[in-house]
Amino acid sequence: MTLDEVLARIQPVDLAIAAQTQARLDRLTKPLGSLGRLEDTARWYASITGQLKPNVPRGVVFTFAADHGVAAEGVSAYPREVTPQMVLNFLRGGAGVNVLARHVGVEVRVVDIGVAYDFGSAPGLIQKKVMPGTNNLLVEPAMSREQAMEALQVGIDLAVEAGREGIGLIGTGEMGIGNTTPSAAMTAVMTGRSVAEVTGRGTGIDDAGHAHKVAVIQQALERHRPNRSDPLEVLTQVGGLEIAGLTGLILGAAAERTPVVLDGFIAGAAALIAVGMQPLCRDYLIASHRSVERGHQAILEDLGLKPLLDLELRLGEGTGACLGMSLVQASIKILTEMATFEEAGVSNREA
Amino acid sequence: MTLDEVLARIQPVDLAIAAQTQARLDRLTKPLGSLGRLEDTARWYASITGQLKPNVPRGVVFTFAADHGVAAEGVSAYPREVTPQMVLNFLRGGAGVNVLARHVGVEVRVVDIGVAYDFGSAPGLIQKKVMPGTNNLLVEPAMSREQAMEALQVGIDLAVEAGREGIGLIGTGEMGIGNTTPSAAMTAVMTGRSVAEVTGRGTGIDDAGHAHKVAVIQQALERHRPNRSDPLEVLTQVGGLEIAGLTGLILGAAAERTPVVLDGFIAGAAALIAVGMQPLCRDYLIASHRSVERGHQAILEDLGLKPLLDLELRLGEGTGACLGMSLVQASIKILTEMATFEEAGVSNREA
Repeated sequence: MTLDEVLARIQPVDLAIAAQTQARLDRLTKPLGSLGRLEDTARWYASITGQLKPNVPRGVVFTFAADHGVAAEGVSAYPREVTPQMVLNFLRGGAGVNVLARHVGVEVRVVDIGVAYDFGSAPGLIQKKVMPGTNNLLVEPAMSREQAMEALQVGIDLAVEAGREGIGLIGTGEMGIGNTTPSAAMTAVMTGRSVAEVTGRGTGIDDAGHAHKVAVIQQALERHRPNRSDPLEVLTQVGGLEIAGLTGLILGAAAERTPVVLDGFIAGAAALIAVGMQPLCRDYLIASHRSVERGHQAILEDLGLKPLLDLELRLGEGTGACLGMSLVQASIKILTEMATFEEAGVSNREA
Repeated sequence: MTLDEVLARIQPVDLAIAAQTQARLDRLTKPLGSLGRLEDTARWYASITGQLKPNVPRGVVFTFAADHGVAAEGVSAYPREVTPQMVLNFLRGGAGVNVLARHVGVEVRVVDIGVAYDFGSAPGLIQKKVMPGTNNLLVEPAMSREQAMEALQVGIDLAVEAGREGIGLIGTGEMGIGNTTPSAAMTAVMTGRSVAEVTGRGTGIDDAGHAHKVAVIQQALERHRPNRSDPLEVLTQVGGLEIAGLTGLILGAAAERTPVVLDGFIAGAAALIAVGMQPLCRDYLIASHRSVERGHQAILEDLGLKPLLDLELRLGEGTGACLGMSLVQASIKILTEMATFEEAGVSNREA
């Protein structure tokens, strides 16, 4: 499926199924509405899949890895070689996302979409490298339009394949030293906020580093002047390859009617582009958590998403998404495994 | 172990182990502190158990059920027979707490500590009935001092037995139509707040019902004038049997150095009594979630506990505790299963 086909295929979610789901939730042995956000989540899941009694879905977190030319400007606390090192850590199962994915029973798929390293034969790695890291967005567009389209297609294809495999829940993950810089640039453009308002400390830069990062992003935006009404241009000029992959993943999942659990800030930047391209895809998204990274709040407000968790996470990789996916699965089990008042012989309040 | 022995046996938690735990967390392949509350939770668990590399503990939620004489005053949206009906629902596995416990892999143990119903032979039910429901606290003390001590002992014994069985994580749960009324009364006394400030809508009463509930609690407190400095008296005069059981469970767990995951408002009222009796037990508690029930916020502030989740739950039973226990287990796996920078060959920021 091409990008245009995907954008055309995304349909509104089914609000009638959401209402029927709430009617069932209201017959379960609990006070009305007393499971709060879990009930909201069950309605959301049903509205996407159209299933009144959904099976608990198999979940997969896609962790896209890529490098960033702008890392040369000293915007991160960590050296660039950490991106491939962490990819290898993901493949060995030793990273945060691996631990949390095992804990909640979802799978992690690691995608090299643009790491500046030749992995050779790396069992388990999905090799889809578009280019070995983006260009330095301070001095030139991060990528060409063709490269951006290619990276979007990687995400689309993975989502469509997952749908065919019967995967019913997709989580977003990423790894890329420097990637809060393009994410902040994209967030500033897409939400209309100031760079200072949406630029955080990433993996942990100090005050001077933060001021430098803000200045780098401001200069880049002055150079490129990306146009909010052309999200693909924003992605091309100040984006990243893993962000483009995530954008494609979100759009492809929405086209497949597969619910998507967003991780944190980087995933949010990808969601801004996806929703900019096709506003209907917003209803296919749930925000797993509120990141400490300051721009994330602006994204959540812009998209109108209320996060499930607020655990002061700022690791990325898909760690928050794993925890959110477990809550989605819990909400489905509530819907399908709890007894109704009638089944359990419990008196309802009307009695 | 008697109550006095339990109170004497509770020791301060081990802050040196907490510091060593953070030192290990800081060597794992993630930016410093980037797993936020999960890191706090791992430190908390280690500080109680004294283990630097803890095994993932077996978890049990104890759901204490009891009836309340004050239910005769029309303070609940549901009829009193719902208490035994829900106990049977728990035993059949059809209630919210059963679904969430299965989801996260913990066990539910259901304790009849004071239901106004004769269950006869009920496989799976822990039968420890102290009396068939409390007296109506509007007109007389909810229970005698002896009955309160007996209910406390039920909780203590269950916690001590669990410790001997090797259960490393305890969650609190409860069921009892009317039980937000004694909980609000206890919370008003123990936190010094007004009754109106700590009285919520429970299972879902309307405005008139809420005003009546506040008036009932105010009259009860004027009648008994319970003394905050004598927590056992507060429990006796305006408490409940399941609340007393939970208080004993918390104290017994602290004596056994078993971490306790609190559910919502009713558990919080029990924690106020437990901490009133032995302030050291506070550090053995974690708040799984912030309940919608309005008095819960006052309890959390009074105890200085910051909840892990805010999912707008107000079901009780131990539902929030289950989700919190899963986060505790996740935090332990982060501590013990993630690779260090050295193990993974990942460059740290000092590089």
